[in-house]
Amino acid sequence: MEKSGADIGEKYAGLSGFAPSLDLANEAHSLLRGKENKEIGGVSEQIEKYRHAKVVTITIKDEQGAKIMGKPVGRYITIEAPDIRFDKTLEAEISAILAERLRQLLPPLSNEAILLIGLGNDHATPDSLGPSVVDYTIATRHIKTYSPEIMENDLAPICVLAPGVLGITGIETAEIIKGVVAHVKPKCIIAVDSLAAASINRVSTSIQIADTGINPGSGVGNKRVPINEKTMGIPVFAIGVPTVVHTSVIIYEALSALAEFWEQSGQAVPQIEEKAVDFINGKMLSSFNGSMVVTPKEIDQLIQNIARIIAAGIAQAVHPRVNKNNYHLYIQ
Amino acid sequence: MEKSGADIGEKYAGLSGFAPSLDLANEAHSLLRGKENKEIGGVSEQIEKYRHAKVVTITIKDEQGAKIMGKPVGRYITIEAPDIRFDKTLEAEISAILAERLRQLLPPLSNEAILLIGLGNDHATPDSLGPSVVDYTIATRHIKTYSPEIMENDLAPICVLAPGVLGITGIETAEIIKGVVAHVKPKCIIAVDSLAAASINRVSTSIQIADTGINPGSGVGNKRVPINEKTMGIPVFAIGVPTVVHTSVIIYEALSALAEFWEQSGQAVPQIEEKAVDFINGKMLSSFNGSMVVTPKEIDQLIQNIARIIAAGIAQAVHPRVNKNNYHLYIQ
Amino acid sequence: MEKSGADIGEKYAGLSGFAPSLDLANEAHSLLRGKENKEIGGVSEQIEKYRHAKVVTITIKDEQGAKIMGKPVGRYITIEAPDIRFDKTLEAEISAILAERLRQLLPPLSNEAILLIGLGNDHATPDSLGPSVVDYTIATRHIKTYSPEIMENDLAPICVLAPGVLGITGIETAEIIKGVVAHVKPKCIIAVDSLAAASINRVSTSIQIADTGINPGSGVGNKRVPINEKTMGIPVFAIGVPTVVHTSVIIYEALSALAEFWEQSGQAVPQIEEKAVDFINGKMLSSFNGSMVVTPKEIDQLIQNIARIIAAGIAQAVHPRVNKNNYHLYIQ
Amino acid sequence: MEKSGADIGEKYAGLSGFAPSLDLANEAHSLLRGKENKEIGGVSEQIEKYRHAKVVTITIKDEQGAKIMGKPVGRYITIEAPDIRFDKTLEAEISAILAERLRQLLPPLSNEAILLIGLGNDHATPDSLGPSVVDYTIATRHIKTYSPEIMENDLAPICVLAPGVLGITGIETAEIIKGVVAHVKPKCIIAVDSLAAASINRVSTSIQIADTGINPGSGVGNKRVPINEKTMGIPVFAIGVPTVVHTSVIIYEALSALAEFWEQSGQAVPQIEEKAVDFINGKMLSSFNGSMVVTPKEIDQLIQNIARIIAAGIAQAVHPRVNKNNYHLYIQ
Repeated sequence: MEKSGADIGEKYAGLSGFAPSLDLANEAHSLLRGKENKEIGGVSEQIEKYRHAKVVTITIKDEQGAKIMGKPVGRYITIEAPDIRFDKTLEAEISAILAERLRQLLPPLSNEAILLIGLGNDHATPDSLGPSVVDYTIATRHIKTYSPEIMENDLAPICVLAPGVLGITGIETAEIIKGVVAHVKPKCIIAVDSLAAASINRVSTSIQIADTGINPGSGVGNKRVPINEKTMGIPVFAIGVPTVVHTSVIIYEALSALAEFWEQSGQAVPQIEEKAVDFINGKMLSSFNGSMVVTPKEIDQLIQNIARIIAAGIAQAVHPRVNKNNYHLYIQ
Repeated sequence: MEKSGADIGEKYAGLSGFAPSLDLANEAHSLLRGKENKEIGGVSEQIEKYRHAKVVTITIKDEQGAKIMGKPVGRYITIEAPDIRFDKTLEAEISAILAERLRQLLPPLSNEAILLIGLGNDHATPDSLGPSVVDYTIATRHIKTYSPEIMENDLAPICVLAPGVLGITGIETAEIIKGVVAHVKPKCIIAVDSLAAASINRVSTSIQIADTGINPGSGVGNKRVPINEKTMGIPVFAIGVPTVVHTSVIIYEALSALAEFWEQSGQAVPQIEEKAVDFINGKMLSSFNGSMVVTPKEIDQLIQNIARIIAAGIAQAVHPRVNKNNYHLYIQ
Repeated sequence: MEKSGADIGEKYAGLSGFAPSLDLANEAHSLLRGKENKEIGGVSEQIEKYRHAKVVTITIKDEQGAKIMGKPVGRYITIEAPDIRFDKTLEAEISAILAERLRQLLPPLSNEAILLIGLGNDHATPDSLGPSVVDYTIATRHIKTYSPEIMENDLAPICVLAPGVLGITGIETAEIIKGVVAHVKPKCIIAVDSLAAASINRVSTSIQIADTGINPGSGVGNKRVPINEKTMGIPVFAIGVPTVVHTSVIIYEALSALAEFWEQSGQAVPQIEEKAVDFINGKMLSSFNGSMVVTPKEIDQLIQNIARIIAAGIAQAVHPRVNKNNYHLYIQ
Repeated sequence: MEKSGADIGEKYAGLSGFAPSLDLANEAHSLLRGKENKEIGGVSEQIEKYRHAKVVTITIKDEQGAKIMGKPVGRYITIEAPDIRFDKTLEAEISAILAERLRQLLPPLSNEAILLIGLGNDHATPDSLGPSVVDYTIATRHIKTYSPEIMENDLAPICVLAPGVLGITGIETAEIIKGVVAHVKPKCIIAVDSLAAASINRVSTSIQIADTGINPGSGVGNKRVPINEKTMGIPVFAIGVPTVVHTSVIIYEALSALAEFWEQSGQAVPQIEEKAVDFINGKMLSSFNGSMVVTPKEIDQLIQNIARIIAAGIAQAVHPRVNKNNYHLYIQ
């Protein structure tokens, strides 16, 4: 019997129970395929290469795939662009790729509004991706309503909301959104959120688009109540970027790498038992009650860069007039 | 027949049609009483003095008073404290006065939640009073729900929301709030907003508390949809501070002062006709389509000081444990 | 005998002593020329029109001109672009005009550093233009020093400083800059500052470039210590934008417009004496000690837009590789 | 021969070369003493307990101590207060302890100015401790100069500077400070900076005060040019708080804990060679060129809390009038 993506600790004997659930379908799939690169039933993968990016589309085709992946049936498109971490001039290229992919998922352009939700906490940098994308985005729905002649066929009606997080507002996020959906009656939601990565290398360099909405997972801040077609009554497209890593994942990566080193060098690989892992976590994270989530020290700049790319991608995907050459005039 | 507060231009012959509607009941009342200090039917005034503040309570007692004042029946308590503009050390004194007055209006302390709404635009300093008070306030409703033992009888359950403004979100503010009220079912709302003053001297030095909620008026940003017991189904207490002045009010003040000077110096007072006023406004504000609202250049500091005072006052009013001596530990 | 720009109150009899000194050479010149549009000795004016801008170059040619204008000999180029207040898409056009004009003044491109100084107070929105331009600008001097191969002939070495203001730091701004100049030895300084306008209509829509540096004037915050070739030992180019208006100027404008109305309508124009003006100011601004400076309530957005335009203009002017089509990738 | 603090990798055989230099004297001393808790020549330690804090004073008495500790002769006082991470109400208690300790080091109160330097990058949260402390502090030097009667004997003259970092300004930080010292001629400098911790548990909970100034070390952002009595000509007191951890330290901690577990459980402890450590780091941090520094995801709140504590402590230490009960009125 195969393991689900939420329980993938067996990569290395003795480390079971150690893996967090994975936010990126791409990472879950890769871990399940393992070193042998075996096929996973009910799941397909497609890879395309661009100049500065690789696009991996994971399609979970049926319930078998959903079960093993620990994620709903649907498409999960990940744009991997490691160079954006240091090269701001790739903004146009990567945002155009995001726009193209997003447009393929979105319903056809029309006069019905799109609701952009920026999940997360404006006052906690690694969790501020959603609110930042909202800040960069120019809402147009009210202009379309009050002065339609200004927009004609150039701009689509979009409205935005950054509902905050339970820990700051004392209000459940999904409930705020439901109230707005009931009033605005948008044709769909685009929800942007910060994710947790299973590898340090991915932080702030992968963008995942999913047509399945936001579903319970680890996320940044344990705030990921379901925001999907089932709870909202309209299609929900999720855009997520890993901005944090659990310290326990770093420890897991280190121990896995140690085992790999021993294996490669022909040494007898000693057993690393679950008890050992518990001991290590307990000792290192005592003053954090055993759980600590970290982010790169450059996180402010990383969030700013990638939030601009996402806002630029969304603007190009939803507005007829906006493209790769002029998008910078249509974001804040 | 008496004039309403929304039509008070006749203070000086020739300036009719020139007065904006007034956000502060205190200013409207004073203008209506005029130089002769005449009684206004259906409206009473009570004044108390403190070391660094004067508290003026205007009570609109009946429909006659409501009509002439251009405001609903209810209590309007204004704390005037000109010294807070320059003296940060008055924070404890003024916030305690605010707490005392607010507690008299609020329903008795209980385990039902209070919803604090910060109206306005976080990214427009003179309109950011509401969001700033929300930022200074620590939400406790979720703690009360998930770990009631932490709070016991020390802290009341409060939740907060800064819904943004239509021009930024593309969504009507009142509709966002209605959705939250339907879910949270608070016992009452405290809504904080920026106001427009009729006198430059009042900007950022007067705090008005009203038990009538937020009602259409000029406000900052023309965003003042009604948020009151009628629209929300629960009592709404409004806290407002003037942070802006219409340039046309400054012009009006200048022309009134000129007339007063002429009168005092025994000169024949020339007629200043409505046509003249229109000409002046048109000429001065041409590139603003005849309407411009201004704020003091120190507005960032002014907002910060008064937002802290209001957050401190609310914390002292709603939480049993918080008082004049420890409030600074219970605001952000 | 002609009047200097710092004493231009005689436009309307009775209002003398009422005019503040004027930060914009363009405004001073226009006021001196008066209704009769007379020539001013030692001063020349040249006007060019663009699609969305008018460029007015005032050249003060000699000491006679300097005396009457109240400003040093030099060139003062003002880009007037009223539409930028509401149309963000003009950013490329206006920044390119600024770049072209600035390049004409700057010394030839070389490997010597340029020092960009952002004057003003980051925490006071109307005074934050300078620090904002610094924030949008990417410093390159250290890259040129430590990894010259990255930049080659594409980017010039630029370094930036936002020294703060005396009221916040307790240190005289010019002294901080002098220390940096002594160390960095740049070939020139570009200093960006907020100005005070003599007309509400100009706020945030005019950009003045001067090859004379920053000289004592009203400015925002009375902080304008001289930062010029004489005090710094290298050429200083100043870029200034009016972001505030003195309330007394608004009063002056209103009284002038009233007089104009009377004149046009054939009425006898009553004398408005200096005593009257003093009375008006005293009455209206009593709680501000007779002096209050205001800014439009949209100042956050206005500063953001124009700071981007200026940073974009500077990047295009100083870096060989940066132009109208790619500048948005070379600002933060 | 004993090892220096900059070379403490031998805690566990095979992990040599793995330890970063340590910013906290307390951590370096503890590591050198090892499990056997041996005495270190030329270094003394003194521990005092408070209700919510432990104060550890490490005194490096001579060159022997300096060499082994990898730090100059002087006093290093560390306030350890793990509870401040979650309990904002400890602000008064901990800031009073900091004030008491700082006052013991500072020269006697006088009318000579103190210069507060906030090192670090305002736009990078984990490196923004210094600028944040500067933001919370109210400069008084200019008041003392221009209106001495306001301050009399109540407030000391303090001035502040946040010089930014080389990567943002293109200018060497120490040179900016030297220029200001030459002009202001303060009696001493207090420099606040972010540090790197050798243990995750210490992040944002330890405050180190040192009378030796800022000396080269790892720090946040590799920006730690020496700012000490030798380079500045006046005494420099450093206040530092660890806000980041090198990922390699987390890996080191994990491997050390694994070895400890094996030892405790009586297992044969396999050798973890340097090659293995290199392999692990290379694999995990490939896209970061082998070096990555992380910070807790709550870093915004942590910086805000501890910056307030430090600003509060400094205010109580330098101003005669400010104490534990009123300090909140004397910080911004």
